[in-house]
Parts: sequence; structure tokens; C-alpha cells
Amino acid sequence: MSHNTFGHLFRVTTWGESHGPALGATVDGCPPGVPLGEADIQPWLDRRRPGQSRYTTQRREADAVEILSGVYEGRTTGTPIQLMIRNTDQRSKDYSEIAQSFRPGHADIAYWQKYGIRDPRGGGRSSARETAARVAAGAVARAALAQLAPGLAIRGCMVAMGASAIDRARFDAAEIDRNPFWCPDAEAAAWWAEDLDRLRKAGDSVGAVIEVEATGVPPGLGAPVYGKLDAELAAAMMSINAVKGVEIGAGMAAAALTGTGNADEIRMGPAGPAYLSNHAGGVLGGIATGQPVVVRFAVKPTSSILTPRRTVTRDGEEADIVTKGRHDPCVGIRAVPVGEAMMACVLLDALLRHRGQCGDGPRGRIGPA
Amino acid sequence: MSHNTFGHLFRVTTWGESHGPALGATVDGCPPGVPLGEADIQPWLDRRRPGQSRYTTQRREADAVEILSGVYEGRTTGTPIQLMIRNTDQRSKDYSEIAQSFRPGHADIAYWQKYGIRDPRGGGRSSARETAARVAAGAVARAALAQLAPGLAIRGCMVAMGASAIDRARFDAAEIDRNPFWCPDAEAAAWWAEDLDRLRKAGDSVGAVIEVEATGVPPGLGAPVYGKLDAELAAAMMSINAVKGVEIGAGMAAAALTGTGNADEIRMGPAGPAYLSNHAGGVLGGIATGQPVVVRFAVKPTSSILTPRRTVTRDGEEADIVTKGRHDPCVGIRAVPVGEAMMACVLLDALLRHRGQCGDGPRGRIGPA
Amino acid sequence: MSHNTFGHLFRVTTWGESHGPALGATVDGCPPGVPLGEADIQPWLDRRRPGQSRYTTQRREADAVEILSGVYEGRTTGTPIQLMIRNTDQRSKDYSEIAQSFRPGHADIAYWQKYGIRDPRGGGRSSARETAARVAAGAVARAALAQLAPGLAIRGCMVAMGASAIDRARFDAAEIDRNPFWCPDAEAAAWWAEDLDRLRKAGDSVGAVIEVEATGVPPGLGAPVYGKLDAELAAAMMSINAVKGVEIGAGMAAAALTGTGNADEIRMGPAGPAYLSNHAGGVLGGIATGQPVVVRFAVKPTSSILTPRRTVTRDGEEADIVTKGRHDPCVGIRAVPVGEAMMACVLLDALLRHRGQCGDGPRGRIGPA
Amino acid sequence: MSHNTFGHLFRVTTWGESHGPALGATVDGCPPGVPLGEADIQPWLDRRRPGQSRYTTQRREADAVEILSGVYEGRTTGTPIQLMIRNTDQRSKDYSEIAQSFRPGHADIAYWQKYGIRDPRGGGRSSARETAARVAAGAVARAALAQLAPGLAIRGCMVAMGASAIDRARFDAAEIDRNPFWCPDAEAAAWWAEDLDRLRKAGDSVGAVIEVEATGVPPGLGAPVYGKLDAELAAAMMSINAVKGVEIGAGMAAAALTGTGNADEIRMGPAGPAYLSNHAGGVLGGIATGQPVVVRFAVKPTSSILTPRRTVTRDGEEADIVTKGRHDPCVGIRAVPVGEAMMACVLLDALLRHRGQCGDGPRGRIGPA
Repeated sequence: MSHNTFGHLFRVTTWGESHGPALGATVDGCPPGVPLGEADIQPWLDRRRPGQSRYTTQRREADAVEILSGVYEGRTTGTPIQLMIRNTDQRSKDYSEIAQSFRPGHADIAYWQKYGIRDPRGGGRSSARETAARVAAGAVARAALAQLAPGLAIRGCMVAMGASAIDRARFDAAEIDRNPFWCPDAEAAAWWAEDLDRLRKAGDSVGAVIEVEATGVPPGLGAPVYGKLDAELAAAMMSINAVKGVEIGAGMAAAALTGTGNADEIRMGPAGPAYLSNHAGGVLGGIATGQPVVVRFAVKPTSSILTPRRTVTRDGEEADIVTKGRHDPCVGIRAVPVGEAMMACVLLDALLRHRGQCGDGPRGRIGPA
Repeated sequence: MSHNTFGHLFRVTTWGESHGPALGATVDGCPPGVPLGEADIQPWLDRRRPGQSRYTTQRREADAVEILSGVYEGRTTGTPIQLMIRNTDQRSKDYSEIAQSFRPGHADIAYWQKYGIRDPRGGGRSSARETAARVAAGAVARAALAQLAPGLAIRGCMVAMGASAIDRARFDAAEIDRNPFWCPDAEAAAWWAEDLDRLRKAGDSVGAVIEVEATGVPPGLGAPVYGKLDAELAAAMMSINAVKGVEIGAGMAAAALTGTGNADEIRMGPAGPAYLSNHAGGVLGGIATGQPVVVRFAVKPTSSILTPRRTVTRDGEEADIVTKGRHDPCVGIRAVPVGEAMMACVLLDALLRHRGQCGDGPRGRIGPA
Repeated sequence: MSHNTFGHLFRVTTWGESHGPALGATVDGCPPGVPLGEADIQPWLDRRRPGQSRYTTQRREADAVEILSGVYEGRTTGTPIQLMIRNTDQRSKDYSEIAQSFRPGHADIAYWQKYGIRDPRGGGRSSARETAARVAAGAVARAALAQLAPGLAIRGCMVAMGASAIDRARFDAAEIDRNPFWCPDAEAAAWWAEDLDRLRKAGDSVGAVIEVEATGVPPGLGAPVYGKLDAELAAAMMSINAVKGVEIGAGMAAAALTGTGNADEIRMGPAGPAYLSNHAGGVLGGIATGQPVVVRFAVKPTSSILTPRRTVTRDGEEADIVTKGRHDPCVGIRAVPVGEAMMACVLLDALLRHRGQCGDGPRGRIGPA
Repeated sequence: MSHNTFGHLFRVTTWGESHGPALGATVDGCPPGVPLGEADIQPWLDRRRPGQSRYTTQRREADAVEILSGVYEGRTTGTPIQLMIRNTDQRSKDYSEIAQSFRPGHADIAYWQKYGIRDPRGGGRSSARETAARVAAGAVARAALAQLAPGLAIRGCMVAMGASAIDRARFDAAEIDRNPFWCPDAEAAAWWAEDLDRLRKAGDSVGAVIEVEATGVPPGLGAPVYGKLDAELAAAMMSINAVKGVEIGAGMAAAALTGTGNADEIRMGPAGPAYLSNHAGGVLGGIATGQPVVVRFAVKPTSSILTPRRTVTRDGEEADIVTKGRHDPCVGIRAVPVGEAMMACVLLDALLRHRGQCGDGPRGRIGPA
């Protein structure tokens, strides 16, 4: 990953600011012949779109995607796909104050320090609005994966909000689309709704943990030792706005395990190795094993809040700052479709690179000769 | 990061297997004129070297580094620096069984699936022995940083072993070098010694959490949005053998914070902004702010253990496996110098890239005009 | 260079087809704070624009560029700059026949073979229309170079059309902008006009040689041994449509020289080394010396011609083909501003990378201590 | 291509100086399971080895390659292959003078300007000795191509020395290995022998043109528009020491052709399209068509000559310089195996990338349904 591009054979470059005329993604290296139209991308954007519940920013954006290149008669041509989303609801007047002051916990100060210039309107390039472009690119990756790895499925959900985690015993995948939190635990979703109403009214915000799982991942994806699948997933998720931690499988909790407890023992199943557990999160030595690939990441609370915080101005004056504008009280909610999109892009890129080096499919089989 | 190379302007390519004749690192893009000799690298390798206490593998390797290129009359020339370490203590006979079976939790099975061929001796390329090359490259990065960012310092330590974490109130940096665990808490170190003796005798192993902190990092390092400093650190740490989670600053715990609690408030100090906390771990929007850069990562327990585990063979037979060989009961211990090395390499690369795009130092100042 | 991106720190990704809604360039890694607006880019596009004389295609395109991101209040912010040019004059009906047949010498057949799908309208992605995006990106590079290397100047011209080369004794830089051929030799330009009228009426086309010279290039640019400045220029120029050969300095003629003749002898001038000749074309060992960087490239004749040529169809039928549409009788003419743009992009990227690794300016001086 | 690495999926990084202890290549991304041993590499190195006739440098190097990693039981494992060649015949005393002065036409001055430090012994990193590493890497690429594209063959030869070109009517491939010039024209070889004896005795040197042809190249290789096969070949050849021009097919002469003359007309042959000529050199739109890929490059005369040339010293003193040492009177001779090696590496990398994006083989067929 470099600057604003990620991926090697399937390469995504995003561009655009929160309050500029448009933003988008340049998707290069997509396999040719993949059926693709705006209608294949829009539903994924709609899942990330703001203003769908009182728990996300009230900014109203259609997030309508236009395909400007790389598709001919409904199929990808193998050339760059330009995906453009016009910004329509910018209210730049909200941001006059923060051009001079820095929101604690926000990228404002760092952009200023690095570049000596920044677009303060809506956070400019550092806005989570950039993630719309990721979701659009992820939809392209999904379309290609549907052809190249038909059994592969990706599912994200929110597994904790603030200090309140879901109860794994109540995990119900069907529940995820039924509440505004992408929460697989109906009870937790109900509590979170109350909590978030309270926090929102208090002018505060809260963090979250997102889990993204990919099943049906072909064994062999990932290129040790610096193109490891988990290393690339870690970079991909950590590059999402506000993410502060990334875990694979048992994750940070792996530190507390013993070798006997951590070993995912193996038996023979009808279609190959069958694992008795998945502490590895589907990745060993940086290579996918065929088990579900499980990634979790922590999203910090939105730093743009109504509660005053102490800060400094560009001129070195001490000040208090309050962010009015329109902001997500729990930006983690909208990170769910973003995490799914990043998973799709990373897996497709790994698949193309594996196919390049090793040919189609895994090369080593396990089973009777 | 791609295949076996990481970095953009400061690029490190490692090569070599556990039981081959040698391993090493090809370090490209180092600034010219940096004083460098084997004596600048060897001490860092010695910190990672196996066989120094009963808590690490008893394999005896001198890990003596040879500089084969890129240095003339004691200074780097700007051309590739080849660092070679000869393997001397390979006992390949230990590994005959595992050529056919797969250790649960080990990369054996994934390498086989991906490539259809693997070097089973000592884990081949997937061995933690590869990390010696990282440490050597990290020493080069440190030498360059000593010139380019003289105030920068990097310090790693182990902050948890198994379920036992240090007490931050007892954190004493001077303690780190005094125990075989790189533990800043003398009491914790004493408990860990007992614990690990017990686990080792029981034929088991245990995980750990490592923390690496860099102070004096110039503001501005990191290139949003896919070359973010934290994204590159996440990839770098996750690429280390056995790592399953990576955190920046508050890390996974950031999910449980509110916006008011998470805000690192700012006052003016004598030399610029002074932060009242560091939940951000020194990185905002993917860019270093000048606060200490704090990374933690979880290392899973060694999967090569004496306790039998259920597995399958290449031919699909169910079997039990016991790994004799010589292995670290807590591979996290030796991950401390490795994590430091990765931090050094990532920071130097970010510094060179920042200098390339933006010139020397940060471009935006904060203070009276 | 990879897929549709070139450059390392200054990275250009182009996208778009001849007859799609738009085409453009995503320019990443531009230094921040560079004054930039559409008015800085449009004049360069106007130089490349079709339909300006009877010697270029009669397609009428405004080639109006829109900056969609990366610029705030008239200055670059260091984030990706999206440059979009809408297509306005597509007449796709002209291309119905060539969807089934292949024009000899044209990319039609190769795109079909590679991808199994192609956009036949106007050549799709293989159209020289893609070069508009290069010119737009080149204008950004020029703006940045104006700040970072103020003495640097780039000048392209056409030095041969068909078998007729200019007379170097008549070389007059002021002449270049005065004729439709960017020809520095007024006499040659007059002959070419006659020749090209004749060829055009005969339904034929012709090749050309373009020369691009950069003066004031700071010594030190270029990264041996695979990022050599001349290697990157060779790739950049060879990537332009229809280019079949690239030369630096003496170029192919260097083969016929002796070592005594080829040596560019050196004397001391007032500001450093003064060379008595420039067979090297400003590059030694892949590194700029400060002499003018001189690149020439050969553009083959347009393959879309009115004269029937023998070919085959997709179904393997033998056929004759005539390309009606609107085409340049000498596509080399419009390659002049394209070659200049590629030179600007390559030099800026080399400058940023040199600054990254070695700091500002050359490190080794020549002169009295 | 970046710094000292080239290739994307098949990546070659070379390292080492002329008079250091060793030099070599780190080859990453090779397909697994390719039969490989030192005996597969050494013959190619022997072709490039100095001191084999009076027409090449009298330095005596065994150029014995050692495989240090990436191969297990005679087959590649898919992990990095380290190829090391020890230097044995360095006579550094020959180079004391040129540490202060600069040879006109040599990289000495440019390395000094760029880095402010250089290894003057034998030209350091800028020595043509680096090309031994390319040849070793090329042998790995050939071994992989033998599996993946069995019909592919690569053949280099010298087609001009100084102003004397071969007569194409006398082209006899069998002749190439029979004379010290890799010349396919026995008569020309005889003249060249006389010429070069004369030049050598006169303390002079001379340039050459090398042609490398690859037959049996699968259609579809190359990734437009910046990863075009011809663009990558141009960069690869231009990166070879002393190369000043690169041509594909008709090359620079394409400029003098008309569209009717340049068109490679197509008929149906028994196995697909059959071309009536090959002005394109096997590449259209940057993509291989299946015709022979033909590249030529010009090598300038060796700049290290016995005839005195005017120069300056590091301190700015004007001086005359004579290079004693041991040098090739026509460095082009030894560039033949180097050009072949670069062709092999570029084609393998293009093949892996094509397979990654598009799957095995070309996707579009030409012929009856």
C-alpha cells in the first residue's frame, strides 16, 4: 500500500475530498469479462450511505455511482474502471472555526503538520466520506470473486459498541440486516439503541468493534513473508478511518493461550482437512488454509463531538473547541460495509497474485493419492 | 509490502530458510554516507539470538552478520546492502516426521497447500529464524535514523505473558534489559520465569504481548490514505511470525471509549503542542503527530510443542503429532527485538517518503507567527 | 510502471476509453502547496488537441479539464488530484466493421487475444486519446517542477517525418510553435506539409521522430540500476501509442562510435563541469549529470488507413479492411506534447525520489574545497 | 522498476560491487516446483564470463554461482532464491587515480554527484560486473519458462559492431556460437575480429548493436498502458550498462515507413493468424501477438580507454585521464547474454501477471467457432 493506492494486481486508487465536487475510485487490474454495472455497485453503497437512521450523520448523500470507464456492454474489459460519486450535500459553512483550531483526536492537526495546507471543509481528504470509494471498489471485487471463487462469501457485523459486546450464544446472522447496527445479537442491538440515543443527546460519541468473516476462501492465498494475507488485511483495516486495532482469529487474546489450547486440531472431513477450532482465523504463516478468515477491528469514537475539548489554534493560542456540523455518534456502524469491502479487495488481489505465481487453485492436496 | 520485500524508498527483501546454508536481507535505498559496519549490526542480532536463556530455543547460532555490498570505507554508498548470516547449527534429522504430517497451528499445512512443495527442515521459510534478517535490516535503519532524526528512540518490551500482564505502575524502563523477558516490571518477570519453567516442563508453550514505542518521531510521517503510518506498522508487525493482533495507542480498547474520553486534549508547551494523553498512539489520520508512536502486538504460543495434538498427514491419514526439535516455549520473547527492527524500518521509509514529497521536516507549524 | 500507473512517489494512473463518457488521470503524491488550477493545465491540453490543422484527426474535442480533487484555494494539498476530461465528439457508428476484423498494425487483435473482450469504439483503451490524460498529468508535474527546479525547461519537437529529417544547421527553437508540425526547421516543415497532404489524399499515413530535451535538470536524478533515469524515460516514451524506438543522446548511433569519439570531455566552467559534447544525452550510469537530457523516439505511421489491407476476422475468415473513421495521417505530430508531458512526470518523480533518499540537491560537489 | 529491483510478480533484486566480496541476485516470486540447480545457471554465466577471448576484459573470474535459498531437493519452493557469485580477481590498485578524476562517458561523475560517495574500485556498483547477477536471474526465469511456455525460445546476437552491420542475407543462427562476437554472419565476424584487434591496440573501443528475439511467446503478455510489454523491455534493456537506444521490431526505422508499408498483413495459417511481416516486433498496443518479439539495443563504446581524454578532478582541477585497468574493447559482446537474460525475466514476469489477471493463456481466440 502506497499513498492512495492499495493492491498489487487488483489495484484500487481512491481520490476526493468530503466537500469537493466528487470522489471516487480508480480500479485497475480487474479480470476481464466480469458482468458489472452500476446496479451491481449501488446496493453496497446504499448500505454505507449516511442518513439512514438517527444513529448516523444526517448529511444526505445519494452516493450514486457512475462507471466512467472499463466496462463495455455490461462486462469488464480488463482496463481501468473509474467509479465516480458526486457530492451533493456539502454545507461548508459549518466548518469555518475548525480551519484555525484542531479537534483533539482528529486528523486536522496531522494534515496541517505534514502538508502545511489542508482542506478543512468536512475534514477534506481525512473524512470518512472517502470510504464510499472503498465500498464501490469492493463491489467490483465481489463481482470478480463471484466468478473466480464462487463459494466465497463475506459477512461483516458489529460485535461490540462501547463496553458492551454481543453474546456469542445469541449470534444470529439473519439478525444483522434487521437493526441499524449490523448487530447479530438482537438483545445487544436493543441496548445499543438506548445507549447511543443517550450519548448522542449528551453530545458524545462511542467506539465499536467490527468483525468481518470470509468463508469459502480458497487455500493458498497470501504471499509470505511480507505479503502475508493477514498482514495485508491488517493494513487494509487499519487504513480505515478511526481504526486503532486489528485482530485475526483469536487476535490479542492469543497472547493468553497456551500452545495446547491454541492448536486448531485437524481431522479428515469429506472434502479435506476439517479443523476442530479456528484460533488461527483461517490464516497460517500468512497463507489462507480454507478455514473462515476472521478479522476484527476496533473503531475509536468519533472525535467531532459537541462536548467542548481543550485544544490549540494554528497560531499557538489555547482554546476550547466544539464541533457542530453533522457527525456519526458511532462511526463504527458505517465501518461494517467498509470492512467487508476491504476484505473483498484484499482477497481478490491475493487470489490473482496466487494464480499468477502458482496457477489456478492450491497446488498441494491433502488426501489419499 | 509484496512477496518478500517491504518498504518503498527504504526497501528490505529477506531471503533464506531455517536450515539452508544462509539467510539474509537485501537492503536497498539507504541514504548514502551513513556510518555502518558489522559492529553496528551485531549487537542487535545478539539481542535476538537463540540459546541465551532456558526460555528460548536451545539451537546455538552465532548469527554473525557479513556485509557483502553497499558499504565503502565504513559508510553506506546508497547502493544495495547485502547482509548475510550463515546457518551453523542445523539438525535436520529432528524434522523427518513433520515432512509428512502437519503441526496444528503451524504454517506447514498452508505452505504445502499453496506451493505443493515445502522445505520441512526447521520450518523452512516459515521459521522464525527469518526474523534475524529483519533485525539486521533494522540495525541499518537505526543507523540512518541516527543521522536523519537524531532525537528518535525505539524501545520494545514484553507487557504480558499468557494471561499475566505487567502492572503499569511498576513500569521501569531500566528493568527491561535485566531479565530474559524484556519485561519492564521486575515482579511480573519473576512470575513469568516460574510460569514458563512450568509450561516448558509440561511440554507446552504460551503467548505474549509486545509493546514497541518510538519517541522523537518527527511529525508528518505517514502517507494517507493507504500508506498511513499505522497501516504500515500494522502490516509490518502482523508479518512477524505468530502475530495475531496489532494495536496502535489505545488499540482494541478504543472501542470502549467515548469521544470525550478518547480526545487527547492539547495545550501549548514550550516546543509546540503538548498533549494531555496519548490514546492515539502518536498517529492521527495515518500521520505522526510528534507524540510517542505506540504499537502493541500479540504473539500466539509456539505451535511446535511436546504435547500430542491431533492432525492429518499429507495422504489424508488421521494421526497424532508431537514436535521434538528445539523450540521457544514463548516465542514472544524473541519478538521484542524483531518488533523494534520493524518499527525502525517503517519509520525510516516513512521519513524518506515524506522528505521526497514534502521536503525536510513538517511543513505546517503551530505557534505564534 | 504497472498496469495503468507509472511513477513511484509522483504517481500517475490514467483511465478511460476513446468513446466512453470521460477519461482522466489520478495524480498522486504531488508536493503540497503548488499553485494549480485548470488554467495551468488547459494550455498544454490545447497543444495536443485534435482538429487544429488538416494534419490531425478531424474529431472535435474541447478537451476541457476539470480538477475534481486535491486542490484547495488554488494550491495542491498533497492528496490525489483527479483530472477529468469529458468526451464530447464520439461517432461510434464509424466503427461497426472493425468490431469483427482486425486492423493490421493496430492493437485491436492483441486486446482481443489478451482479454477476450474489447471496446471497439475508437480503439477503446488503446486509442491515442488516452494521451490527453498524460498531458494533463504532465501539466501538474510542470507546476511542481517550477517550484522545485526553477531552472528546468522542457522542449519537444519533431525532427523527422517519414524519411525526411530536419537539418540541424537550421534548428531554430522559435520556429517550433510556428508550424503545425512542431518542427524547428522551417524548410523541413514546408516540405512535410506537401508530403502529408499527398499522403492523406492517397489514404496513407507516415511515421515521425520526436525529440524532447530537458535543460536545467539537477544532477543526481535517477536511481541505478533498475530505476535509472534513462530506463524510466525509455519505458515512459515506449508506453506512448505507436512508439517503436527510444534513444538517449547519441542513441542507436552510439553503436557506431569509438570510445575516443563518444567521450564527452570535461572542462571546468564557471558553475561546475562544462562538457564539450553531449553524446550521453545528459545521463551517465542512469543518473542525470546536469547536461541537457535528450530523448528521441520513433512513432510508427497510423495503422488506421483508407488503403485496403489484408486481414482476418474474429471467426478466422480472411478479409480486406479499410478504416474510415477520422484519423491522424501522422500521429507523431500530436506525440510532441505527449513526450514533453512524460518527460515532466519522469523528472519530477526522479527528483522526489532523489530528495527522499539523498536530501535536497546533489550531495557531491565538484570544485575547489 | 525501482532502485535495484525489477519485475512485479517475478521480481529480481541485484546487489554487489565490482570489487566487493560478492555480488548476486535475490529472485522472488518464482513459481514453485521448477527444477533448478547450480548446473542450470552456470552455463549461462559462462557465456557472459570475462576473459574468454582477447576481445573481452582479461579479468579472470570463475563466476561460480551458489544457490543459498529457495530450492529444496532440486526444485524451487516459491520462496526467494538467493544467487551469490563471489568476486575472486579484484586488482584494486589499478583504480587509485580514478578515485579523484572522472572518466568522460563513465558513471563515475554521476555517482559522485548523486551520492557524495562512491566505491571507485572497478567502477563499484556501476560496473558491468553487475550484469552477472542478471544472467543468473535470467537462468531462473528460463527454467520457469521451460515449464510454463515450453515452446518459447530466446536467442541473442550481435548485429552491428561500430559502423559495420551484418548482412541479413547471410544470417545463420548456427553461426552465432561459433565466433567470439555472437555474430550470425561469418563474414562480418571475420571483419570485426580485425577491426577490434586494431582498435584494442590503438587503445580505443567501439559500440555495437545487439538483437534479442523471443519466439513462441504466448499472445496476451503485457499490460497496457504503462505495463506494456515493449515499455518493460525498453526499460529492461536501457538499464543494461552502456545502452543508449532500444528498438522494437522496425524500431527507429518505423518513422520512415508509411501506413501501407508498416501494416503487418494477416492471413489465416493452420494454427491461427499468420502475419506476412513483423514490423511490429511481436507487440501491438503493448501486448504480445504471438509473432516473434524482436528487440534491438545499442551499446556505446567502453568509456575506460587508454587514449587520454580531457576531464576534471573532484577538486575542480582540469586534467587528462587514461584508464589502465582491464576493460572490454567492445562491451557490447558480453551484453548479448545479458540482453537474453533480461528478455527472459521480463517475459516470465509478464506471463505471471497475465495469468494472474486473465488466467492461463490468451482469452480471445481467432478462428471458426
